Amino acid sequence: MMIDLYPSRIQHESEIKERRDAVVYGGAEDGPLSGEQLEFYRRNGFLHLQALFEAEEIEELRRELRRLWSCEPPRRREEVIREPASDVIRSVFAVHRDNSLYQRLVNDPRLLAVAEQITGSAVYVHQSRINYKRGFSGKEFYWHSDFETWHVEDGMPRMRALSMSLALSDNTRDNGPLMLIPGSHHHYVACVGATPEEHYKSSLRKQQYGLPDEDSLEWLVRNGGISAAVGPSGSLTVFDCNTMHGSNSNITPLSRSNLFFVYNSVENKLCEPFGGTAPRPEWIAHREYTPVCRSEQVLG
Amino acid sequence: MMIDLYPSRIQHESEIKERRDAVVYGGAEDGPLSGEQLEFYRRNGFLHLQALFEAEEIEELRRELRRLWSCEPPRRREEVIREPASDVIRSVFAVHRDNSLYQRLVNDPRLLAVAEQITGSAVYVHQSRINYKRGFSGKEFYWHSDFETWHVEDGMPRMRALSMSLALSDNTRDNGPLMLIPGSHHHYVACVGATPEEHYKSSLRKQQYGLPDEDSLEWLVRNGGISAAVGPSGSLTVFDCNTMHGSNSNITPLSRSNLFFVYNSVENKLCEPFGGTAPRPEWIAHREYTPVCRSEQVLG
Repeated sequence: MMIDLYPSRIQHESEIKERRDAVVYGGAEDGPLSGEQLEFYRRNGFLHLQALFEAEEIEELRRELRRLWSCEPPRRREEVIREPASDVIRSVFAVHRDNSLYQRLVNDPRLLAVAEQITGSAVYVHQSRINYKRGFSGKEFYWHSDFETWHVEDGMPRMRALSMSLALSDNTRDNGPLMLIPGSHHHYVACVGATPEEHYKSSLRKQQYGLPDEDSLEWLVRNGGISAAVGPSGSLTVFDCNTMHGSNSNITPLSRSNLFFVYNSVENKLCEPFGGTAPRPEWIAHREYTPVCRSEQVLG
Repeated sequence: MMIDLYPSRIQHESEIKERRDAVVYGGAEDGPLSGEQLEFYRRNGFLHLQALFEAEEIEELRRELRRLWSCEPPRRREEVIREPASDVIRSVFAVHRDNSLYQRLVNDPRLLAVAEQITGSAVYVHQSRINYKRGFSGKEFYWHSDFETWHVEDGMPRMRALSMSLALSDNTRDNGPLMLIPGSHHHYVACVGATPEEHYKSSLRKQQYGLPDEDSLEWLVRNGGISAAVGPSGSLTVFDCNTMHGSNSNITPLSRSNLFFVYNSVENKLCEPFGGTAPRPEWIAHREYTPVCRSEQVLG
């Protein structure tokens, strides 16, 4: 059994601990990000990149998304998560496994080079999904650190993973954009309460365990503020696995779709979940560690 | 029985009709607002005013709010509305009737002169309330035109009323600020469905009737966009009774409190509710039409 550097959900009181891992593992010479960009990411825990893709590429990804949404059969697949109080689709998981276009995108050298530079290693895909926040009725995602869940429920030992969120629709100030707390990734908020078995079956609709307490969130926001990932369709936000993030609901008519890929270092393979529960299924936490290989021309 | 110029909740399909009343009734010579400000209000249906009050006055109002909140007894008063899924206070109504400080504020010449200028008449208070959107958990207010409800459920015959929202905490882009649809007040969205008796008992927690349909909202936003009432504590937003507005939820730690006063023209007194239900109680729709009189020095 590996030593648990980041215990959570075992105490009666929440606690803010210091991060015990690096944030950026590579240097400016190792990839496309400049020293300034790497420093921004190291300090804040995220980075916004514009215009990484051509307009036609984004249009192709949007078309595929519409096709995928309209073809989703009424029969229930585990990978399709619906809103807490309705049948509206909220997320579809494992899209890089089940969809050939998104499979090619996950291998795209423009994304991959950034992931390898930040983790300083080869990477594999820990998780992929599309998040859909429907206009008029999309509900909030409460604050959370992805790493807390991945550590406790999936057995990810260290902080050496990152998420990429590619906007497939405009993210405005008003349609419930992703909000990040700058600097929060330097701290680890140990949460209160145990994890029930098969927690993922409800947590993907509405999380109830592994939620940070209000005092810790207040402290993080007082120190770092809030930064919203706002930008037109095609904008990419890269953020550290431990950056505290969430989003408000969306009553505007503007639906919001984002593609998420999580790259984890191949030197940070999963072990037994630190929370003591059974590992979550493959479609939500892959245990196939083959490094992603760069394809040549990906889309189009 | 007065002729119903704005029928709603009697059809099977929603409909967008033209407004049949003026928006601004007075001129630049009739009050503190300039011709430019009046024209902005006429065109957009709202106006943001900064620094109308001294910092000490706002601090006094905030202190009173904290006192009022902490003293609210656990026993249920009708005037105190709680969140749909918890006991957290969401609104307190009739604060200008029950609280001497807010009573003085409603008579403040700085507010009153604006209300009289826009309505071109003496005014009385149709409704007053404090809205509290708690940090971490405050829920959304779905889009609505106040006038639609006041017309159908209270019997307000014409559009000659306005709301003033005074921020008693910072309204940021992230903490679920009031969103307005510019230009929406020129149109009247007739809603589908009847009104159950005593609708107000649930509607103030979560409205289910008198809600505009998604197609109409999409059309209004496509034409006018969305404008968020963002500003520091002390900011005032004046908006027309028929301006479509709403707000997203608030997961940030920043709670949001706003004082609302609704001034209606004394020439626009209530009649029987056009929806055919019994009038709502006095604390939510006053039927005492005594014009508000300007006090001299109000606060401090």
